[in-house]
Amino acid sequence: MKLNKDQIDHFNREGWLLLPELFSVQEAALLTLEAEKIFASTRPEVWREKSGAPRTAFAAHLYNQAFGVLAAHPRLIQPIEQIFGERVYMHQFKINAKSAFAGDVWQWHQDYGTWKRDDGMPAPRAMNIAIFLDEVKSINGPLMLVPRSQMEGDLEASHDLQTTSYPLWTLNEPTVARLVERAGIVAPTGRAGGMLMFHGNLVHGSAGNITPYPRRIVYLTLNAVSNYIRSPSRPEYIAHRDFRPIETVADDALLRLAQAEQISRDRPAVAYGNLT
Amino acid sequence: MKLNKDQIDHFNREGWLLLPELFSVQEAALLTLEAEKIFASTRPEVWREKSGAPRTAFAAHLYNQAFGVLAAHPRLIQPIEQIFGERVYMHQFKINAKSAFAGDVWQWHQDYGTWKRDDGMPAPRAMNIAIFLDEVKSINGPLMLVPRSQMEGDLEASHDLQTTSYPLWTLNEPTVARLVERAGIVAPTGRAGGMLMFHGNLVHGSAGNITPYPRRIVYLTLNAVSNYIRSPSRPEYIAHRDFRPIETVADDALLRLAQAEQISRDRPAVAYGNLT
Repeated sequence: MKLNKDQIDHFNREGWLLLPELFSVQEAALLTLEAEKIFASTRPEVWREKSGAPRTAFAAHLYNQAFGVLAAHPRLIQPIEQIFGERVYMHQFKINAKSAFAGDVWQWHQDYGTWKRDDGMPAPRAMNIAIFLDEVKSINGPLMLVPRSQMEGDLEASHDLQTTSYPLWTLNEPTVARLVERAGIVAPTGRAGGMLMFHGNLVHGSAGNITPYPRRIVYLTLNAVSNYIRSPSRPEYIAHRDFRPIETVADDALLRLAQAEQISRDRPAVAYGNLT
Repeated sequence: MKLNKDQIDHFNREGWLLLPELFSVQEAALLTLEAEKIFASTRPEVWREKSGAPRTAFAAHLYNQAFGVLAAHPRLIQPIEQIFGERVYMHQFKINAKSAFAGDVWQWHQDYGTWKRDDGMPAPRAMNIAIFLDEVKSINGPLMLVPRSQMEGDLEASHDLQTTSYPLWTLNEPTVARLVERAGIVAPTGRAGGMLMFHGNLVHGSAGNITPYPRRIVYLTLNAVSNYIRSPSRPEYIAHRDFRPIETVADDALLRLAQAEQISRDRPAVAYGNLT
């Protein structure tokens, strides 16, 4: 798994890169099934919306085999090591539900702002990665990215404890308007199994989801080993303290697990999982 | 302005029809400008979101010249008279702001449910019409429609006074999921000046808008004259009591008004109107 020059140039210029269908339908279906089980549980790592609908499950790679394999998968790790020129460790690992009917908004923000202020991360040498567990459509609350905004560095932000059910350092409206006026907004879509990577300083957000289509993604952060966090203030299941570089698994490890679980090769994405 | 057979068949089958670019850029720009003035005013007909951002301005055709001309425009009136085989009057006329950054959600609902229960409208012989004042994009809270759901008739609904800032008879999640599983969701988009018409029993909703792009539309209801409301309970500026058929203006009436106001022929849609 190597990025080509066009892909690297696109990432360096635009601040994001989509690798569609990186994981097979079968691999993605296993992860969706496991995510449903986790969201149905009541662990402290599983956070909920004001409505009670699941919002985020943290650190699933530490207590679920399939997500453990995903977190060490070469298709995910190698492109990031290639870009940073250095090995990486898992800074954060979460499954975001964006539930059918009840998925809440994420206001405009940069992630590095939080890593710096809350975790003491020295530089934005950590990569955001979204793995699609459901089809991401234009109507079910896709991630919206402001291209090239990573070049602005760390923008002024205020700590928003109100408008979302998760504390965020959010940007003010004139800043977002200025950046969008220059470069617009992209909202990459695609079937389950796709992978979207973007810069820690890329401005992004997502609207609520009122459709019957859940938009679950694994949303993880790989940090360059030398860039380990210096002064973490958040719980260990949110900002990890294991700074050892990730040892990747075999490329077919997730597929073999799906086969062992007898996941059908053409099992469709579960569209109405939240209703059952 | 006559619909052709394909357009009528599409409406009768799918429950909706988009007439893109029905009004010129110049005509639409005049309406956008007038809408900004109305939203900046403090009339009782102008309702606001919880945040204070404008949400809906009712009955603007009765106190604003440009919207008065729009409300009697043949491009808007004639297709509806053609479908109903009868003359029409204005049952409701509002400008919905769906403001930049702060546009709120409209839960899934049918409009005829409200007209029947709150206004005593005998039959769903009234047409919903949306005129785009800004470009409607996939990311700024487009109307989402469930095709063919008008064939379900008047579905069971509950009066929702909580989740939106406007009282609505909303549908439950299993009902929406069942209809969407059958026919999916469409979210028509297009530049300012487009017109979307849809059946009074078509299930629809829209997500919030967190982008810097406002998505203002004129949202009006033309009712067949014989189907006048029998027992109105809402204020007259919401459910009108003037049941006389609309006398249309000349096709160039709105254009001439735009020219008189010196609206440029290529004035772009105002993208950041809410920020000024």
